[in-house]
Amino acid sequence: MTGVSGIGFIGGALDRADALRHDTGALAAALADPAARLLVLDGLLPVADDGLLGWTALADLPAGAQPILLGLDDGGRPHFTALTAGMRVDNAPAMRSPALMALLASLRAGEAATYAAARSVIDWHVRHGFCANCGTATAMFRAGWGRRCDACGTEHFPRVDPVVIMIAEHDGRALLGRGKNWPAGRYSALAGFLEPGESIEEAVAREVAEEAGVVVTDVRYVASQPWPFPSSLMIACIGRAASDVLTIDRNELEDAIWVSRADVRAVLAGEAGPFIAPPPYAIAYNLLTAWAAE
Amino acid sequence: MTGVSGIGFIGGALDRADALRHDTGALAAALADPAARLLVLDGLLPVADDGLLGWTALADLPAGAQPILLGLDDGGRPHFTALTAGMRVDNAPAMRSPALMALLASLRAGEAATYAAARSVIDWHVRHGFCANCGTATAMFRAGWGRRCDACGTEHFPRVDPVVIMIAEHDGRALLGRGKNWPAGRYSALAGFLEPGESIEEAVAREVAEEAGVVVTDVRYVASQPWPFPSSLMIACIGRAASDVLTIDRNELEDAIWVSRADVRAVLAGEAGPFIAPPPYAIAYNLLTAWAAE
Repeated sequence: MTGVSGIGFIGGALDRADALRHDTGALAAALADPAARLLVLDGLLPVADDGLLGWTALADLPAGAQPILLGLDDGGRPHFTALTAGMRVDNAPAMRSPALMALLASLRAGEAATYAAARSVIDWHVRHGFCANCGTATAMFRAGWGRRCDACGTEHFPRVDPVVIMIAEHDGRALLGRGKNWPAGRYSALAGFLEPGESIEEAVAREVAEEAGVVVTDVRYVASQPWPFPSSLMIACIGRAASDVLTIDRNELEDAIWVSRADVRAVLAGEAGPFIAPPPYAIAYNLLTAWAAE
Repeated sequence: MTGVSGIGFIGGALDRADALRHDTGALAAALADPAARLLVLDGLLPVADDGLLGWTALADLPAGAQPILLGLDDGGRPHFTALTAGMRVDNAPAMRSPALMALLASLRAGEAATYAAARSVIDWHVRHGFCANCGTATAMFRAGWGRRCDACGTEHFPRVDPVVIMIAEHDGRALLGRGKNWPAGRYSALAGFLEPGESIEEAVAREVAEEAGVVVTDVRYVASQPWPFPSSLMIACIGRAASDVLTIDRNELEDAIWVSRADVRAVLAGEAGPFIAPPPYAIAYNLLTAWAAE
């Protein structure tokens, strides 16, 4: 289901074992299992070798670190990651670096998915140590899949932020845009966060209208994938543009262009074209591939 | 796009006017516009008459209330809702009452969508008055579409929680389940929150496996809608079940059954059948309708 030629960050091999999170006794047994494995992240970066994530024995859990259950493998072996004491994520700009992206591209199928889940949950803990309802410090519960406030009783759960990413098509051409400070020549599908009170289809239409001034209808869902920077759910769609006349919001986009199927096919095949394609583990790559194949 | 026969909570008539949220001068002008309208909620309940939401002049903004920009109508008139001082949402169980559901069903197309956006954003403000990163009290910014912490500088934005809701099909029958304490006879599509690090398709497969012990593949997207209790994005899908042998998780479901297309068509037509259908403004209704029509 995944790998460089598939959809990024999906196809993880672990069963999340939700029931275990709610069963204190079973969780204690998993934590005491000598076969239990631990995924240690270096800050939020993965440690990987030869395309595989670097696992160690859970017994190597650093002092003061709190284990987070990632799930069980086919043999029932529990796998954890850890929130280490004093972990910081405010060096985040380095996290989406070319070096990380190259490392992710080297991971075998499914490994990036496991990393994505671990990274998003750890990052959420680090940035959500206090109760948004009352301001008191909270504590991890449910094997790391939540935080609870003892002062007001509120339970908090990791965020997943849905993002729509879309191609507006008109007369056989696709609308692509580029943000400020992107690598030279790089264009990709427009995208934006879905807001409370709107459907996926409405968010697609709103974003294209806001960024490019184009009315979009007939929105079709194509695919989804997680994007752990920090915790997005990417929802890829194609819609029909009523016009190819653009009114670009220069606060959002540096530029936007219409590209033909022939252009997209050439670029995806590694040939020269009017733009440089997004990387294969970004869903924009799959979205362009799907559109080019229509 | 909406109304009782369409998809619930979509088709709102207001342009969200994102640019206005970032433009202090334009926002001040909108707030001073004598034509500006205000949607007052009674707690979190809508005030409605004859299928229309009850709007008043923005000049009627209660003392101490903070306006939240909902958007502009076709004539450019700004529309606001308000976070009133001391508003509480901890009487939430009453919020999803039969009375509210009946009122929502009576609203004209698009009105429930405007209400959904207002309700979700207000509810988020009330439950997120403190910085999750450092515990300090935060303040509204961006015309109500965010909160900022002056102590640590963190910006917070309203949550949207993606939920997958799905029909697993096997040999022409659909899997439905019922939760504890549901109205007698009511069955609906299985559903659950999507977690960090998984795609829509993976979440669908995981939820059906967890709740009913059935392996699901070939997941297809059907439709989406907001569900403002408090801020879900419902993502409806159909998948293929590998077997019709159920292993029900009794912590999650009170019961689960397989129903035929004839059963579903009868129930949706208001005839007697093996279950009572979900209400039309719930996406499960549209999902069942889509499946029955295949």
